Amino acid sequence: MSYQLWTQSYGKGKVRLTKVDREGDVHYLTELSVDVELDGNFTAAYTEADNSMVIPTDTMKNTIYAFAREIDVRELETFAWTLGCHFVESFEHVTQAAVSVSERAWRRLVVDGEQHPHAFVDGGAEKQTVQAVVLKPSEPGEDPDGALESGLEGLAVLKTTNSGFSDFLRDEFTTLADTEDRIFATTISASWIYNEEPDDWRAVRARIRATLLREFGARFSPSVQATMYEMSQAVLDAEPAVEEITLTMPNQHRLLVDLSPFELDNPNVVFMPVDEPHGNISAGFCREHPEQDHDGHGDEA
Amino acid sequence: MSYQLWTQSYGKGKVRLTKVDREGDVHYLTELSVDVELDGNFTAAYTEADNSMVIPTDTMKNTIYAFAREIDVRELETFAWTLGCHFVESFEHVTQAAVSVSERAWRRLVVDGEQHPHAFVDGGAEKQTVQAVVLKPSEPGEDPDGALESGLEGLAVLKTTNSGFSDFLRDEFTTLADTEDRIFATTISASWIYNEEPDDWRAVRARIRATLLREFGARFSPSVQATMYEMSQAVLDAEPAVEEITLTMPNQHRLLVDLSPFELDNPNVVFMPVDEPHGNISAGFCREHPEQDHDGHGDEA
Amino acid sequence: MSYQLWTQSYGKGKVRLTKVDREGDVHYLTELSVDVELDGNFTAAYTEADNSMVIPTDTMKNTIYAFAREIDVRELETFAWTLGCHFVESFEHVTQAAVSVSERAWRRLVVDGEQHPHAFVDGGAEKQTVQAVVLKPSEPGEDPDGALESGLEGLAVLKTTNSGFSDFLRDEFTTLADTEDRIFATTISASWIYNEEPDDWRAVRARIRATLLREFGARFSPSVQATMYEMSQAVLDAEPAVEEITLTMPNQHRLLVDLSPFELDNPNVVFMPVDEPHGNISAGFCREHPEQDHDGHGDEA
Amino acid sequence: MSYQLWTQSYGKGKVRLTKVDREGDVHYLTELSVDVELDGNFTAAYTEADNSMVIPTDTMKNTIYAFAREIDVRELETFAWTLGCHFVESFEHVTQAAVSVSERAWRRLVVDGEQHPHAFVDGGAEKQTVQAVVLKPSEPGEDPDGALESGLEGLAVLKTTNSGFSDFLRDEFTTLADTEDRIFATTISASWIYNEEPDDWRAVRARIRATLLREFGARFSPSVQATMYEMSQAVLDAEPAVEEITLTMPNQHRLLVDLSPFELDNPNVVFMPVDEPHGNISAGFCREHPEQDHDGHGDEA
Repeated sequence: MSYQLWTQSYGKGKVRLTKVDREGDVHYLTELSVDVELDGNFTAAYTEADNSMVIPTDTMKNTIYAFAREIDVRELETFAWTLGCHFVESFEHVTQAAVSVSERAWRRLVVDGEQHPHAFVDGGAEKQTVQAVVLKPSEPGEDPDGALESGLEGLAVLKTTNSGFSDFLRDEFTTLADTEDRIFATTISASWIYNEEPDDWRAVRARIRATLLREFGARFSPSVQATMYEMSQAVLDAEPAVEEITLTMPNQHRLLVDLSPFELDNPNVVFMPVDEPHGNISAGFCREHPEQDHDGHGDEA
Repeated sequence: MSYQLWTQSYGKGKVRLTKVDREGDVHYLTELSVDVELDGNFTAAYTEADNSMVIPTDTMKNTIYAFAREIDVRELETFAWTLGCHFVESFEHVTQAAVSVSERAWRRLVVDGEQHPHAFVDGGAEKQTVQAVVLKPSEPGEDPDGALESGLEGLAVLKTTNSGFSDFLRDEFTTLADTEDRIFATTISASWIYNEEPDDWRAVRARIRATLLREFGARFSPSVQATMYEMSQAVLDAEPAVEEITLTMPNQHRLLVDLSPFELDNPNVVFMPVDEPHGNISAGFCREHPEQDHDGHGDEA
Repeated sequence: MSYQLWTQSYGKGKVRLTKVDREGDVHYLTELSVDVELDGNFTAAYTEADNSMVIPTDTMKNTIYAFAREIDVRELETFAWTLGCHFVESFEHVTQAAVSVSERAWRRLVVDGEQHPHAFVDGGAEKQTVQAVVLKPSEPGEDPDGALESGLEGLAVLKTTNSGFSDFLRDEFTTLADTEDRIFATTISASWIYNEEPDDWRAVRARIRATLLREFGARFSPSVQATMYEMSQAVLDAEPAVEEITLTMPNQHRLLVDLSPFELDNPNVVFMPVDEPHGNISAGFCREHPEQDHDGHGDEA
Repeated sequence: MSYQLWTQSYGKGKVRLTKVDREGDVHYLTELSVDVELDGNFTAAYTEADNSMVIPTDTMKNTIYAFAREIDVRELETFAWTLGCHFVESFEHVTQAAVSVSERAWRRLVVDGEQHPHAFVDGGAEKQTVQAVVLKPSEPGEDPDGALESGLEGLAVLKTTNSGFSDFLRDEFTTLADTEDRIFATTISASWIYNEEPDDWRAVRARIRATLLREFGARFSPSVQATMYEMSQAVLDAEPAVEEITLTMPNQHRLLVDLSPFELDNPNVVFMPVDEPHGNISAGFCREHPEQDHDGHGDEA
C-alpha cells in the first residue's frame, strides 16, 4: 500500500443544546450548537479498519451534554475551551481538539416595561461564536496550548445614505457608474483574538459588538473596505485585549429601480434588493508588531 | 376538446423592494416582498395560446415598483389594497386580484441611547403580513369588494417553565408521559380580519402583537391549545375592531436529555432542541354571531 | 365567554421515516416525510384546558412508525389512506384525518451496468406526494369517505429553445418585449384525482410523470399557460382514471445578459438565472361533465 | 496609525450563469455559479479610502459573463483557470486570483428512449466544482503559477446494509452499542489535485465519480473512515494523474425506531432519519513521496 493519509479530522457537528440556568425565579436561557473535531493518531481506523482508537462521535455528543450540565455555558469561551481540554487530556492519542460554539440569540420578553422572568423572544439571525483549537501540551502535566477565537456572525445592518463608491479602477469590462449616495447593506461576520484573558468575556464581547455597530453608522463610507478599516481600528483602539480582528462584510446590493419608463423619477427612493450576486470583502487587522511575521498577503498599512 | 379549465391564477411572486422615506434627516426604511395573483377571463391563454388578455407578470413587477414610488408603503394594508384595486379597475377581464405583502423587520440602530437617523439593524425573522383579495365590484363605478387580512409570521418565543401537558387521551400507541413542567417553544403565525377600518393600522397591529406576547408569558400553559385560546381571547377582548383571529403555533420540542448513564441528574436543565418532527396546532376564533355561518369544522365554544 | 372556535386542526408534521423492504438480497428503500392533521370535537382542549380528548401528537408519530412496520409504504396512496382511516375509525370524536406523504427520490446505484442490490444514489429534489383527507362515515360501519390526491413536486425542467411569449396585453407599465425564442425553465408541481382506483398506483404515477415531461419538450411553447394546458390535456387523454389535474409552474427566468458594452453579441448564449422575482402560474383542468359544478373561477374551455 | 492589514480578499460571489452551446439542433446546457476573490496591493482602499486600485466587483461580474461568451465553459477547469489568469495578467497589483466554479446538474430529457435535443431535467443536488488559485508569475512574461483543484459536492448516497461499527474506544461517556448491520448514509464531497493535465477533464472527472460510487457500494464498511480510505485508494489506483484526493463524508444517521412498546419487532426495517447532530469525517490521501512534506496532521499510512 503506497498512499499516505496526510490530513484527517472527524467529530460531531450540530449538537444542539438548550440550557436553563435559574437564579431564584429568574431563568437564563442559552441555546447553542456545538461542533467537535478531533485530530491525532487515527490512521489505523482508515487503513486497517481498526476502530480501537476511535472515540465514537456519539460519545462526543454525550460528552457535550454532560459538560453542559456541569459547567457554565453562558461563557462560551470557557465552555468551548474546557470541552477541548477534555479531549486532549483524556486521550493520549488525541493531539488536537477543535470546538466550535454558536449561540442563538434570544431576548428576554418585556411586558409593560418589565423583564419577564422566564419568557423569551427570538433575537434574530445573529450568532455569537467561539472557535477553540486546543493542542496537547508538549510536556505532560503542562496546560494545553492552542488558540481561542471569539466572534459573531449574521449581524445584518443597513444604512440608507452616507455611503458612496467612486474613483475606482476602470477597465474594458467596467460599466458601474460613480455614486456619492447609495444604500450600504451588509451582514457582519467578525472574529477576534485576545492577547490576554479578559476579565469578563461577555462584557468585552458586548462592547466590541457595540463599537462595530457605532462605527458602521458613524460617518460617510467611501467603500466597504474603508468602513471595515474604521470599524476594526475602533475596536483595536478601544480594547487593548484584542490583538487582531477579522471582518467579512458582503456588499448586499440594493439596486435603484429605473422608473423613467413610467414617467416617474426615483431620487434614491425605491430599490430592488438582490441576494445574488453579491460583493465579498474580508480583511484582518492586527496591532503592529515590527518583529511579528504574519503570513497574510496584505501589505503593511 | 373536452376538458375544462376550472381554476387558474397567475402572477408575480417575490417582488422585493426597499423604500426609503425621508422626514428631514430622519430616514424610514421599509423592505417588502410582494406577490400578485390575478384571476379572470384568461381561458384563451391556456386553450388557444392567445396572449392578448395576458398582463405579463413583468408588468405586474413594474406596477408594484411604480406604486411603491407614489404611495406610502409603510401602511401595508393600504399598499396591498391599492395595488389590488388597480388590477381589477384597470382591466375589464380581471375579476380578482390577490396581493400579499410581507415586511422584513429592521430596527433603528441605537448608539449611546440615541436613535440613529438612517442606520438600521436586522429585526429578526418575524414578518408583518397582509393578504388583500380584491374583487371586481358587481356594479361598475362601485368600490371594489373583497377581504383584507393582516398578520405576522415567524415570531419565535420560548418559555422555560409554566408549561405542562397531562391527562391526555391514551391508546395503544401512546408512550408520552404526563409532565407538569416543560419548555414551551413555538413560532407564532397569526392573521386577523377587522370588522371596520382601524384608525391607525400600524398602532393596532403593534397592540395585537404585544397582547399575543403578553398572554404567551402570562400564566401556566396546560396545552398549546389552551394558550392559543387565551391569546386569541385577549386580542378579541382588547380590540373590538378585530372580528376573527387565526393562530398557528407549532410545538417545537425541547427534549430533556437523559444524563443518568453519566451519573448526572437533569432537573430540567439540559435539553435537546429538535426541529423535526414537530407538533402543529392551528385554530381560528371569532366573535359569536348567531346568524353567522362559518364553514369551519370546529364546534361552538 | 363569547368567542367561537370556528376552525382548528392539529397534528404532527415532518415525521420522517426510512423503510427497507427486502426480497432476498435485493433491498427496496423508501424515505418519507409524513404529516397528520386531525379535526373533530377538540373544543374543550382550547376553551376548558381539558386534554382528555387530545391524542398527543407524539402518539401520532408512534402510530406512523408502527403502521410503517406493518404495511407496505411503497404504495404511498394506500399508506396515507390506511393511516387516515385508523384515526377516524379509532376515535369517535375524530371527524377528519388529513395525511400527507412526501417521498424523497432515491435511485438504485448502477455499477458497470448492473443494478446494485442495496446501494442508492440521491434522485434529486423531486418528491412524490399524496394527500389523503379521510372523513368519518356518516353511518357507523360504512367505509370512510374522503378525497385522495396524488401528485409530485419539485420536478425542475428547462428547455433552451422552442419557447416564446408575444402579442400580450400592454399597458402603461409594460416594458417587456415580444420574444420568439427564450429559455423556458420551471419546477413542475402537479396533483391529480382519480375517478376510480387504478390497478397499479405506482405504474400510473410513472406514466403521468412521463407524459408531463414528454409534453413539456414536445413543441413550441407560446406561453407557460398554453404548455400547461397541453401537458394536462395529454394526461387526461392518456389516463381515463384521472378525473382532474392541477399544475403549478413558476416561470424561473433566465435573463439574456447584455454584452454590448464589451462589443460582444449574445445570440441567446449567455443568460443570468434569477430566482426572484418569478412568475407563478397555476391551473386546474378536469373532464367536462355538464352536470358538474366546480367552484373554480375559470370559464369553460 | 498603528494597525496592520495582514490579510484581505475581495471579490464577487454567486455570479450565476446559464450558457447554451449549440451543435446543429443539439443544445448543451451549462449552469454555473462563479466566485472571484482577488488579493494584491489593495491596502490604500482600506487605510486611505483610495479606490484607484479597486476593480469593482461589478466589473468582475461583467468579466465573467464576457468570458463565458468567448470560451468553452463546459470544461470547468479551463474556464476557472482562464478567468484567474485574466486578473493576474491584466492588473499589475493583483498577485492572486481565486476562482471557484460550481456546476448545477442537468440531465438531458429522455422521451421514449430518445435523448431530447434541447430539453433537460434536474440532475439533483450534486455539484461539480473547481477551485483555481492563480498566482502572478515571479518573472514577467512567464505563465502564471498556482493550484487547480477539481471536485464534487452534494452527492448523497445510502446503503441499507453491509455497514457496521464495532470494537471502538469506550469511555465513561460512551453509550453507543456495537452494530454489525446499520444503514450507511452520507453526502460525499470530494476534491482532488492532478499531477499533470488530463487529456480530457470531463472524462477523468466522470471516471473518478464512478469509482467513488462503485467503492461505496462494493463491500462491508467497518467504519466511515475505512470506506473513505478504500474509495480514495481506488481513485489513486485507477487514475495516475490524480496526486491527492480529499473526501468529506458526514455520517447522516438513520436511527432504528424502537417499536417494542407496540409489541412489534424491528429487524432493521423502520428507521428515523435525523439531520442533526451528524458525524463529520474528512480525510486527505496522497501518493507517497518520501521527499514530500505535507503539513497535515495525520501519520504516514
